[in-house]
Amino acid sequence: MKVYIEPIGKLINEFSKLPGVGKKTAQRFAYKIINMSKEEAEEFAEAILLAKKNVHYCKVCGNFSEDDVCDICKSRSNSTICVVKEPKDVIAIEKLNEYQGVYHVLHGTISPMDGIGPNDIRIKELLSRIGEGVNEIILATNPDVEGEATAMYITSLIKPLGVKVTRLAHGIPIGTDLEYADEVTLARAFVDRKTL
Amino acid sequence: MKVYIEPIGKLINEFSKLPGVGKKTAQRFAYKIINMSKEEAEEFAEAILLAKKNVHYCKVCGNFSEDDVCDICKSRSNSTICVVKEPKDVIAIEKLNEYQGVYHVLHGTISPMDGIGPNDIRIKELLSRIGEGVNEIILATNPDVEGEATAMYITSLIKPLGVKVTRLAHGIPIGTDLEYADEVTLARAFVDRKTL
Repeated sequence: MKVYIEPIGKLINEFSKLPGVGKKTAQRFAYKIINMSKEEAEEFAEAILLAKKNVHYCKVCGNFSEDDVCDICKSRSNSTICVVKEPKDVIAIEKLNEYQGVYHVLHGTISPMDGIGPNDIRIKELLSRIGEGVNEIILATNPDVEGEATAMYITSLIKPLGVKVTRLAHGIPIGTDLEYADEVTLARAFVDRKTL
Repeated sequence: MKVYIEPIGKLINEFSKLPGVGKKTAQRFAYKIINMSKEEAEEFAEAILLAKKNVHYCKVCGNFSEDDVCDICKSRSNSTICVVKEPKDVIAIEKLNEYQGVYHVLHGTISPMDGIGPNDIRIKELLSRIGEGVNEIILATNPDVEGEATAMYITSLIKPLGVKVTRLAHGIPIGTDLEYADEVTLARAFVDRKTL
């Protein structure tokens, strides 16, 4: 005898596809849905369909957008372009309310181990955006092997064009104790020390 | 400037309604949906709608069912009825493949603190099931204050009818160390010790 009736089993199966969700959590989610009112469940399903239908990629920067060109590209000067790996990095930076320039989402980083080369991410598109009025490219890929390699590669392509290329600073996070900083970060903080 | 475009913000909001899901996790789920193929996302939404639409409660035992009466009630003898708090308890017991009787889901336990009295859970329905052929009622509510109180209350109603009432055994879990058993469980294991 099967343990779950079919519609529940199917819903648990769908929830299990979400990142970090196992059978037990998926079961809790499914029960939550079943205990919702009909309207709430319909709204939930509708939100999934609408997100899938209405979220496109901005054809300039590659970020999520409802239109062909996203609100950020439409409303800001393109003198500074911040290059990130994924759309969620844009959100992390936007939350600071500090940066006023535009973005370029690579949708990945160069990773030969996973068979991802320079042509598999949006580097060509970045190069084609560099022209009149672009003063600085900020490379904000993650400080891991792939992110660093991608930053180096992009630098080698853009520097000859005479555009300033910068990379986000690495160092000891604010508010932590020297004792607990990892060695690589600490070493990097020494190398990149600032004259006061 | 808002951080999320509307369809993503809405989807994140929906996912946040699931138990134990915060903003960050909801964001990861939303990205997963956006990265799915159109068909996959539609299947996901469909599973939610179908579960909501096709899952009813069995009118005999109160467990989830696609039909008026669930498969367990249809196919098994009602000589033994196992009383549980919630449908997920039925699943936990069914997974054992040990128990061959039917169930009765109370949909809650008596909890005066939360304003839940005997009439708010399915006790009347349990009493109406007791008749010809019912030999034993197994009380499998949780071993917490509410579960114990509910078990006591049901016992007081059913015992006068001449039906055997049993409660799941409490004691030290198999495979653990005496040292790590909590005091209440250990004391209970002493009281309920078995003659060998």
